[in-house]
Amino acid sequence: MRILLTGSAGFVGSHLTERFLQGGHEVIGVDNYISGQRDNTALFLGQPGFSFVEADVSQGIPDPGGRLDWVLHFASPASPPHYQQFPIETLMVGAQGTQNALELARAHGAKFFLASTSEVYGDPHVHPQPESYWGHVNPNGLRSCYDEAKRYAEAITMAYHRHHGVDTRIIRIFNTYGPRMRPDDGRVITNFMHQALRGDALTVYGDGSQTRSFQYVTDLVEGIVRLMDVEDHEPVNLGNPVEFTMLELVGVLQDVLGRPLTTLREPIPHDDPRQRKPDITRARTLLGWEPVVPLSDGLRRTIAAATAHDGTVAATPARA
Amino acid sequence: MRILLTGSAGFVGSHLTERFLQGGHEVIGVDNYISGQRDNTALFLGQPGFSFVEADVSQGIPDPGGRLDWVLHFASPASPPHYQQFPIETLMVGAQGTQNALELARAHGAKFFLASTSEVYGDPHVHPQPESYWGHVNPNGLRSCYDEAKRYAEAITMAYHRHHGVDTRIIRIFNTYGPRMRPDDGRVITNFMHQALRGDALTVYGDGSQTRSFQYVTDLVEGIVRLMDVEDHEPVNLGNPVEFTMLELVGVLQDVLGRPLTTLREPIPHDDPRQRKPDITRARTLLGWEPVVPLSDGLRRTIAAATAHDGTVAATPARA
Repeated sequence: MRILLTGSAGFVGSHLTERFLQGGHEVIGVDNYISGQRDNTALFLGQPGFSFVEADVSQGIPDPGGRLDWVLHFASPASPPHYQQFPIETLMVGAQGTQNALELARAHGAKFFLASTSEVYGDPHVHPQPESYWGHVNPNGLRSCYDEAKRYAEAITMAYHRHHGVDTRIIRIFNTYGPRMRPDDGRVITNFMHQALRGDALTVYGDGSQTRSFQYVTDLVEGIVRLMDVEDHEPVNLGNPVEFTMLELVGVLQDVLGRPLTTLREPIPHDDPRQRKPDITRARTLLGWEPVVPLSDGLRRTIAAATAHDGTVAATPARA
Repeated sequence: MRILLTGSAGFVGSHLTERFLQGGHEVIGVDNYISGQRDNTALFLGQPGFSFVEADVSQGIPDPGGRLDWVLHFASPASPPHYQQFPIETLMVGAQGTQNALELARAHGAKFFLASTSEVYGDPHVHPQPESYWGHVNPNGLRSCYDEAKRYAEAITMAYHRHHGVDTRIIRIFNTYGPRMRPDDGRVITNFMHQALRGDALTVYGDGSQTRSFQYVTDLVEGIVRLMDVEDHEPVNLGNPVEFTMLELVGVLQDVLGRPLTTLREPIPHDDPRQRKPDITRARTLLGWEPVVPLSDGLRRTIAAATAHDGTVAATPARA
């Protein structure tokens, strides 16, 4: 297949690229590096089947010509520090970016795949969240630049499906981790890992009893690939429903590193990320999918990649 | 003041234009007539202070040059039959249209006013709805082209306010009626009025006990004008909290017309408009505003305008 992938230099985009190239497919990556990383393009440049276009998909996606089988729209800042640094760019890549990708798919008769997010559920009143839950989102709060952009992206994707007959897929990605996360993404696994590798104490907010669920990136990629083979247009949750408290996460990280870690308690920030846990019944039923990588294995692989990638990690002064 | 108004040929836009011109202000109207009406432009053409540009604000707003004090963004299909006929245009005028209007305001150092809607509350679980209620909206359902477009419009308006310092206002307009509504807007007052004027039976869905609240358009315009004078950036509900059942509405219409009306019962449609009722505490406190036109007076004025405007209304075969 010939696949155009926006956000190819992002964390998830780079793993998708890897998977598609391994499967013998052709990948045209597009990124403007607003939150993607040039290293993630360098990984694949020169590999057979990979080409790259530096472009802001909100302004327009250069038509690569020839046949296109799929357009996958994964471009967007995705972590709170990034989308709050670029609120308008985040809104635009959800609206104009999604529409440009849909128009490209439509022009080529290609299928379209939208990376949406568990953030469409906002601060949920239903636990865990099934896809039928409409969410609880502040339409104009500080997070709305991301949450509402993705809700809009879902709405316009379904409008192109209903109105123009574009063959679409939508996934809602829950908290995902793995190699090639940005060290400054501000999320707990990244923070803990880089603090541990530097020999610093791990910052635990509050009493550490709050829970998160963590999906290893190859599990996500497997779900994406399976959904491409199934014709179903409604959103599908992809995430790991197993929850860990922050203190349990510290324990798993200690086991993986084989040494004791110290923690530093700080008050819970006002905008502490909201707790969400996927109901994955639909993915199980539709795709025969569920996460298979345990947290300890995923952490081991993520740490191995971080230290192999950059031997200086432990000494880098940048605060995660 | 010099005011650029998108959606000037729409129902609300035409009343705003009238009010501003009466106040001695200059109005530059912009509309593409996707749901606005050419008659509403013809009303003002040639009047001092009025000029008009036919343009699709989603594609760009021609800069009129000179000073601009306000950009008011009221362009959008707003009734269910219209936005479902034009789902993608509706999504675009909420995203690109709002952003183009914000950019114009920013370039001129003008203030910006967004017409949002009670539809951001969706199918609410809280009655009546205060502005602090986050709503209950299906992000990818049939109505999402309007609901999510307006939620996005609020999000990007607040992003321009927070990030670029644009001096913004947001209102959420509840069910509004009056002269110059489109006869095909599909809403109950329009339907009842045109059925009555034609001598047809009034279509009542279900047992007629469902309620709606109706705001006369001059009340809305008064609220808008007052908010322009107050610096407050959070959304403000503008609507009439007095509720009527459908059968009560038939009764008021009978009194106004001075003759008995017959009704025809039909089953409630699957997508019967959702019930919403504004909590107007914020508008009362902030603006000293509340609706003052009783339903009977508003209906009388609306009917007078419809019959004066077109003596053939009673005989027109077009189904409302």
